[in-house]
Amino acid sequence: MVLGSTGSIGRQTLDVVRALPGRFRIVGLAAGKNLDLLAEQVSEFKPEYINYSLVGRDEKETRNRLGATRCEYLSLEEIARHVDVDIVVIATSGVAGLGATLAAVKAGKNIALANKESLVAAGEIITDEAGRSGTQILPVDSEHSAIWQCLNGEKQAARRIILTASGGPFREYAKEQMAGITIEQALDHPSWNMGKKVTIDSATLMNKGLEVIEAHWLFKINVEDVKVLIHPQSIIHSMVEFVDGSVKAQLSYPDMRLPIQYALSYPDRLANPDLPHLDWSNFSDLTFQQPDTARFPCLQLAIEAGRQGGTYPAVLSAADEVAVDLFLSRRIGFVDIARLVEQVLERHRKTSRPSVEEIMTADTWAREAVLGLIRGDNK
Amino acid sequence: MVLGSTGSIGRQTLDVVRALPGRFRIVGLAAGKNLDLLAEQVSEFKPEYINYSLVGRDEKETRNRLGATRCEYLSLEEIARHVDVDIVVIATSGVAGLGATLAAVKAGKNIALANKESLVAAGEIITDEAGRSGTQILPVDSEHSAIWQCLNGEKQAARRIILTASGGPFREYAKEQMAGITIEQALDHPSWNMGKKVTIDSATLMNKGLEVIEAHWLFKINVEDVKVLIHPQSIIHSMVEFVDGSVKAQLSYPDMRLPIQYALSYPDRLANPDLPHLDWSNFSDLTFQQPDTARFPCLQLAIEAGRQGGTYPAVLSAADEVAVDLFLSRRIGFVDIARLVEQVLERHRKTSRPSVEEIMTADTWAREAVLGLIRGDNK
Repeated sequence: MVLGSTGSIGRQTLDVVRALPGRFRIVGLAAGKNLDLLAEQVSEFKPEYINYSLVGRDEKETRNRLGATRCEYLSLEEIARHVDVDIVVIATSGVAGLGATLAAVKAGKNIALANKESLVAAGEIITDEAGRSGTQILPVDSEHSAIWQCLNGEKQAARRIILTASGGPFREYAKEQMAGITIEQALDHPSWNMGKKVTIDSATLMNKGLEVIEAHWLFKINVEDVKVLIHPQSIIHSMVEFVDGSVKAQLSYPDMRLPIQYALSYPDRLANPDLPHLDWSNFSDLTFQQPDTARFPCLQLAIEAGRQGGTYPAVLSAADEVAVDLFLSRRIGFVDIARLVEQVLERHRKTSRPSVEEIMTADTWAREAVLGLIRGDNK
Repeated sequence: MVLGSTGSIGRQTLDVVRALPGRFRIVGLAAGKNLDLLAEQVSEFKPEYINYSLVGRDEKETRNRLGATRCEYLSLEEIARHVDVDIVVIATSGVAGLGATLAAVKAGKNIALANKESLVAAGEIITDEAGRSGTQILPVDSEHSAIWQCLNGEKQAARRIILTASGGPFREYAKEQMAGITIEQALDHPSWNMGKKVTIDSATLMNKGLEVIEAHWLFKINVEDVKVLIHPQSIIHSMVEFVDGSVKAQLSYPDMRLPIQYALSYPDRLANPDLPHLDWSNFSDLTFQQPDTARFPCLQLAIEAGRQGGTYPAVLSAADEVAVDLFLSRRIGFVDIARLVEQVLERHRKTSRPSVEEIMTADTWAREAVLGLIRGDNK
């Protein structure tokens, strides 16, 4: 099933399924907002189960509009643990995916996880449950897929993980220029085609910080042993260093369909005519820089929250989500994102080894704390 | 056992053994020329079996000089297949290693293979025998070790292999400058510390061509699907492209001790304080160029010989060995190496699927053919 089928990752997941006819069957589709696209997907992939938001909608009319009269409407959790489902693709953004993620994990379904926020906020719970149920977490982020591919077949854990980052559109900006950054500039990412929230997070490097925390949980590595390296070409998607000093890297043109397909086909690899191959007769130089946390404080905030653990990552993630929303609705400036997140983290009192309820409470608290700060600013 | 223990790879193999006390035991040592160093190694590693050239030497006197009175003298083949031996490190250069290699392979011993020439000349025989006996060929060349590491855990074969090459000291030379190259210039390799023969082969790119043929046999890949890429920093040691467009690369500072150790420790990796780790806080750019076969014709000659197969690779390798010797003894110029090899290949009549005897005959023929051409030149 694909949870979040009309978003960027959801659509690309269906592109992969379409390119490999006969290989995968779509059992369930779930989407929140874009009913027109969901209707097209229902018509093309003919899922048995469907989920969409019923808030403010007439159920019968909506089902007709979706052409989904033959689909059974189930809750996200019901689809995620359904006996017909082998892999649950979690392609929503935000902590909203946590319930379905946990339902799938507890039912022992393998999850292709593109949702950063649930792993950041509840990494310990998800990975513990996965260990218990035998669920395999198949990373879909290009960076974590790269690390996973590099670890394939290795008997020892990574000594160090090197997460690469494009550096976003403001890599070369002077510190003084950062305050004047507009939404249009921030949404114009140089190498990846992604959703809005992720694109802004890439511009602030918050995205990379969240990925450090994800890597910590996915690969059982200390936050201190995850190193971030700016690599503007986005060809090397990440690297793994081993105890003997050997390093493996995974490379490709930036295209999310590759990590999505690998998560679905693992441990096999499938030829897909739609996926680009590197052009070796015209292979460009690969450059690297150190990240500048003075200009991109979100990276350091995330690493610090990951190091502190407990409810800090949930608060970081929720505060960032609200701050990015405020930036996208032109209510705050680009540099305010980091400032607000930092202020909220400073006010937070951590709960160690939190339950799902405590994580959700911290999440709600953080969202309100950002809005409270904004109201204070406007007084 | 270490066959060729006083050469560059042999010495570095013993460095690895020394750095990991208690992990490996040296059962046998064999060396050709450097008796003083062999004596030191015998004293340090106390092998049970030993082999050295007896040509022109008094056996008893030599054993005393080596301090090897407690070692049993055995032939190379006897040591290679001895019951106490688990891994045979083939660290000689030249086709002379072929007999011991085949003895080890037929006895089902895993071989850590640093000897290019035997695999180039007799790749089909060695890999066929290894398949029959269950011998694992553990590559020791940094490039083939890189490919092997990248293939680790993969269920599908490589779609393409990208062999990287430093480009040698004459990478930036104009074609007209090549004729004036001296031995001293050719032996001054920018990034690797190797034996003389290999260093000259690196300068002509013959080395890379031989590696294409080795990769063809080791990884069962068509010669056409092995691509050579110049990478002056020698940080990426090679790459593997898979059917889905994903590429894996292996990186490290250039240090032969890493691939040697990996061959010995596989499938484990061992922490070794002597092995350098990449400095991520100062990680440099990686650059790439296409190889220029007009200036480095040896590369194309080798690829062509590999494509033709049969006895061509044996002739290429033998002719090159003699030509490099002639260059090192100042009897021919740098560009004559490629010219002589090409002329010998042109005169050769191929035997398909040759036996070991036919390979040795072709080898001898090629050596005499080079010397014949030289005599003709000097008339």
